[in-house]
Amino acid sequence: MKREHISKQYDEELSELREKLLEMGGKVELMINDSIKVLIERDSDLAGNIVAFDHEINRLEMTIDEKCLGILARRQPTAKDLRFITLALKIVTDLERIGDQCRNIARKARELNSEPILTPYVDLPFMTTCAAKMVKEALDAFVSADVELAMKVCNEDNIVDDLNEKVQLKLLEVMTANSSAISGGMKINYIAKCIERIADHATNVAEMVIFMVKGKDIRHTTTH
Amino acid sequence: MKREHISKQYDEELSELREKLLEMGGKVELMINDSIKVLIERDSDLAGNIVAFDHEINRLEMTIDEKCLGILARRQPTAKDLRFITLALKIVTDLERIGDQCRNIARKARELNSEPILTPYVDLPFMTTCAAKMVKEALDAFVSADVELAMKVCNEDNIVDDLNEKVQLKLLEVMTANSSAISGGMKINYIAKCIERIADHATNVAEMVIFMVKGKDIRHTTTH
Repeated sequence: MKREHISKQYDEELSELREKLLEMGGKVELMINDSIKVLIERDSDLAGNIVAFDHEINRLEMTIDEKCLGILARRQPTAKDLRFITLALKIVTDLERIGDQCRNIARKARELNSEPILTPYVDLPFMTTCAAKMVKEALDAFVSADVELAMKVCNEDNIVDDLNEKVQLKLLEVMTANSSAISGGMKINYIAKCIERIADHATNVAEMVIFMVKGKDIRHTTTH
Repeated sequence: MKREHISKQYDEELSELREKLLEMGGKVELMINDSIKVLIERDSDLAGNIVAFDHEINRLEMTIDEKCLGILARRQPTAKDLRFITLALKIVTDLERIGDQCRNIARKARELNSEPILTPYVDLPFMTTCAAKMVKEALDAFVSADVELAMKVCNEDNIVDDLNEKVQLKLLEVMTANSSAISGGMKINYIAKCIERIADHATNVAEMVIFMVKGKDIRHTTTH
């Protein structure tokens, strides 16, 4: 009975960890969409919210880190659980850095909003939607150990890379034709790069999920 | 006696982990310096070496990950060791991503080498030296739990950010004066951003070291 009790508590801790990760992922997703709104809807007030959001993300990172460490220290998980927890530790860092990118986007967008629009935003909104979707899917793939979904995310990264390429070419064209658009163009270029990095983080998470599910099983390690 | 034997083996595993991390750090440092040489010395052949180097870095990442998982599964470390190993898992990801940045720099530099030089490289070499130094220091701070050195790295990040700002302004000036320099300028801007990201990774490592040393001690977590 006591053993069952401990096992139930352990399961609860693991599912709590899963929930916290999804909560953090949901917040990060919102943040991505909000950060691009600062630019597209020229809503500079929203930039302040994003900074506040980022603090919350940082706190969640620390909470999840501590949860993982707590489980490792007290439950001494092996095999699948161990791999899940160690990946959670890595993934939470990716999520936190996506938050940093959103803050960078919001900050740069606010700068752009104080200038007249000289360069088109081209595919930035679509790029952002793709990146946000990738983050959600990568995290879903992680909590449900879904390799197929993880592989989908890796493929979607190519779409974002292509869009980024398109944005670069368009900016080059606009900047070459009109030198007063160069300063703004560099800022949009910066934002596109941030979005591309968000997609990269999602891809990194997805790759780790594939490794988690298909990788070498820790149970087969010989003990000394 | 048997216990002592196990403890000795455990210590050896931990010091092996430290050594592997330093080995990876050393390789990454070389890679950073080589990647900028592709640009500054217009040595496109070197770019091929960097791609090969990157494969080695990826292999080292997997080796270290497996070492960490092995220790967690077999030794069930607590307290300081647990924090060290979980941070090693995070840090190795940063090192691997620095390797990715080097590959990006080398690839873009090779593109630039096939064009005439129209934009100055400004402070790029110095920025690179700073970033490589930060990576070395951050890793040294990690293996020796040196908070002071970690804080130094965080401060050095400001220097790299300032240099990047200077590069941006110079590029803007050159590109505005000469529209045929825009394409090359965007590429140099991309490389500067990669170097800045390398410095960011080093700073992330340093911040984690500070947290590792000063953070809440896992030993004080109550057991259920």
